[in-house]
Amino acid sequence: MSYSIIAAELHKALLDQDTDLVQTLASELTPADIALIGGHEPNTRLASLLSCLPLDKRAATLGYLEPQEQLAATADMPVEELAELVAHMSADERVDYYKRLDKDRQQPLLKALPSAVRDDLKKLARHAEGTAGAMMTSSFMAIPAYYSVARAMQTLRLKGADVETIYQIYCIDTSGLFLGTLSLRELILASSDTQLAELMTEEVIWVAVDTPQEEVARLIARYDLLALPVLEGERLVGIITYDDAMDVAEEEATEDMHKGMSIGKLGGSLRTASLFELYRKRVVWLVLLVFANIFSGAGIAYFEETIEAYIALVFFLPLLVDSGGNAGSQAATLMVRGMATGDVRTRDWAKLLGREVAVAIGLGLTMALAVSVVGVFRAGTEIAMVVAMSMVLIVIVGSLIGMILPFILNRLGWDPATASAPLVTSIADASGVLIYFAIATAVLGLPV
Amino acid sequence: MSYSIIAAELHKALLDQDTDLVQTLASELTPADIALIGGHEPNTRLASLLSCLPLDKRAATLGYLEPQEQLAATADMPVEELAELVAHMSADERVDYYKRLDKDRQQPLLKALPSAVRDDLKKLARHAEGTAGAMMTSSFMAIPAYYSVARAMQTLRLKGADVETIYQIYCIDTSGLFLGTLSLRELILASSDTQLAELMTEEVIWVAVDTPQEEVARLIARYDLLALPVLEGERLVGIITYDDAMDVAEEEATEDMHKGMSIGKLGGSLRTASLFELYRKRVVWLVLLVFANIFSGAGIAYFEETIEAYIALVFFLPLLVDSGGNAGSQAATLMVRGMATGDVRTRDWAKLLGREVAVAIGLGLTMALAVSVVGVFRAGTEIAMVVAMSMVLIVIVGSLIGMILPFILNRLGWDPATASAPLVTSIADASGVLIYFAIATAVLGLPV
Repeated sequence: MSYSIIAAELHKALLDQDTDLVQTLASELTPADIALIGGHEPNTRLASLLSCLPLDKRAATLGYLEPQEQLAATADMPVEELAELVAHMSADERVDYYKRLDKDRQQPLLKALPSAVRDDLKKLARHAEGTAGAMMTSSFMAIPAYYSVARAMQTLRLKGADVETIYQIYCIDTSGLFLGTLSLRELILASSDTQLAELMTEEVIWVAVDTPQEEVARLIARYDLLALPVLEGERLVGIITYDDAMDVAEEEATEDMHKGMSIGKLGGSLRTASLFELYRKRVVWLVLLVFANIFSGAGIAYFEETIEAYIALVFFLPLLVDSGGNAGSQAATLMVRGMATGDVRTRDWAKLLGREVAVAIGLGLTMALAVSVVGVFRAGTEIAMVVAMSMVLIVIVGSLIGMILPFILNRLGWDPATASAPLVTSIADASGVLIYFAIATAVLGLPV
Repeated sequence: MSYSIIAAELHKALLDQDTDLVQTLASELTPADIALIGGHEPNTRLASLLSCLPLDKRAATLGYLEPQEQLAATADMPVEELAELVAHMSADERVDYYKRLDKDRQQPLLKALPSAVRDDLKKLARHAEGTAGAMMTSSFMAIPAYYSVARAMQTLRLKGADVETIYQIYCIDTSGLFLGTLSLRELILASSDTQLAELMTEEVIWVAVDTPQEEVARLIARYDLLALPVLEGERLVGIITYDDAMDVAEEEATEDMHKGMSIGKLGGSLRTASLFELYRKRVVWLVLLVFANIFSGAGIAYFEETIEAYIALVFFLPLLVDSGGNAGSQAATLMVRGMATGDVRTRDWAKLLGREVAVAIGLGLTMALAVSVVGVFRAGTEIAMVVAMSMVLIVIVGSLIGMILPFILNRLGWDPATASAPLVTSIADASGVLIYFAIATAVLGLPV
């Protein structure tokens, strides 16, 4: 059966409260799929879906749910049952779930957990959200560097089922300090009496517990790492695996896209966000931009006489100012994304600015040509000339605003993504109004 | 020495043409780092940096360079030298490089390659760009399913150095057909006389050679896969590893961000794109939008008498129409990104539309409040009322346009990301002009 058929059958079985069928269908699905299907069900049905799963799969599925769905699915679960479930989650997902709980549910849960799990959870929960410490799992394969390959393989067979990954092995000294790493591939290819110390690399790419998560994702992607060790002092306290880096990269891209449109960071997914959260994350900049756009209005008011004398000018106002905003938003987006992926560095900026001017001149001339056709037809050659000249200048100025703003914000220590399309557009609009009417006033020979 | 110090030293050593020092410094860097540093050097220096590296590292570094940098770095290389280098690249990077070469360089290179490499390259090069076939590598660990664990481990030790990954093992039957997979972890934890057939999973997540690359990236991220098998019929022809999926996900996010601002897909990075490419990818929509914005101008012209009677109305025009465009762009971005990440599905749409209306009413009322303060102060209560009423309606209509447009485009078989901020803004602007002046004409009691 294909995924979509099973998904539809599962939905029906949940509606019918046919527990046996739910179990059978769920056994053919991965935890990721079950979470996706369950996330679209109302809370009570999601909870009953979870209860049909064997413990390990239930714990894995809980880890795949969206934050709000996790809380909803476990809201009515007795604390002993919850503790058993949570104890079976992977260490990094457990701490994420734990942090999302209300304070008054956290304490009873902690008490009900086995002491080893509790200590691990407390240790991981110390780290601030958005840092390597909050992403990492404490379950990794650490082996003393003086072990031989054969002994290391024996250790792997003994403990390998319980750790997040066995494909990267972390070598420690007798006091537990971190020495270096080797891959399981290197271990398997080496002769069995070699010491790990001879095989391991000491030049390891690592991060500190407080390294920001976007930096973690960038390092894992850049060096094609399977897992990245997290150190606290000289002690290895956790690892972050590639799959978590992928999730963070997706999250960061979403955040940057939203920021590019002046939307604040959502706590979870769009689907599960509350109405008030959606309102709150959008309203701040929208209101600020209303005030920013007063400058454009003031610019128009200043040139009232010009407008009254040549009311035909107003016809071209939207297309001129929007063109500057569009070209500027494009330039800003290219810059901001280039900076985020590491493609563009601060010291490339002068060169890129030069290139942008060249491109903007080309864009401006093409657009001026397009608009002057309309201009001649609609309002005569004189106004068409004003409009064409304005277009070139407005596009160039708009592009420069889009290029320069992210760098200024970056210099001020802000996220360059704050140079959102709406902000660039507002600034470009005001400039556009001034450029247009100033040229019109000069060319058409009106008193200001 | 830290990375940035080595990078600066390396730059200096390249300037001084100090080959020994370049070699020493490069030996401390990973291929990813060397590629990043070399990519910022002029072509001749990049070529001489490559020539200082041992063959394997040179091949790996070439794989990490941007497309244009690859071509520049190898442009003057004699074909025998190039063939030796290319033969040492990983199979998937080799074919990417090969496809980027001019036709008249491809043929001599093919001839100079060892025949096994040539055949592999030809086979991989058949697949269209952007498909699983073009992403995959032909170097994976296939083992007959009737092998015992011990024999499989022996095979791994023998051939494990040459394949892309040994952490996922692909089981085949005696005629080479694909049967199932198991992880190296499962292999290591199993007892040595078990047959692979007993251990392997037959319910494998796989793709066809023509599956689009974004679907590949989505599957790898969703199921946290280390590698995804690619089938042609029942035959396993390649695998795609997580690191390639990460690169594709980043590329797709960049493409979507650019598309969201009406910028076409760039062939490589912003840094290495030609001026003409940048111009060409931006100008098409910019010119189309100039014509789209004529509607706003026409709207204004239609209400010429209203404007002449109440010239103060023009003061509020930019902030009103921009507000509609901003709210609409936000809604479109939330939708488009939600659809791209799989967070939002087509059948969630009606529910999301209802939520958007509720949020938009809240946003509109808040912004109306903000603008009416300015309105009363600037133009009296009557115009303030017109402006506030218009704001509420414009924000709601703008939001709806932003919500609906991606879905309409999707239905028409277009990429929903075509509902870019500039396009949404243009449509919202024209609606905004009509709403504003229609309300003004009605409330202020003017003849149209």
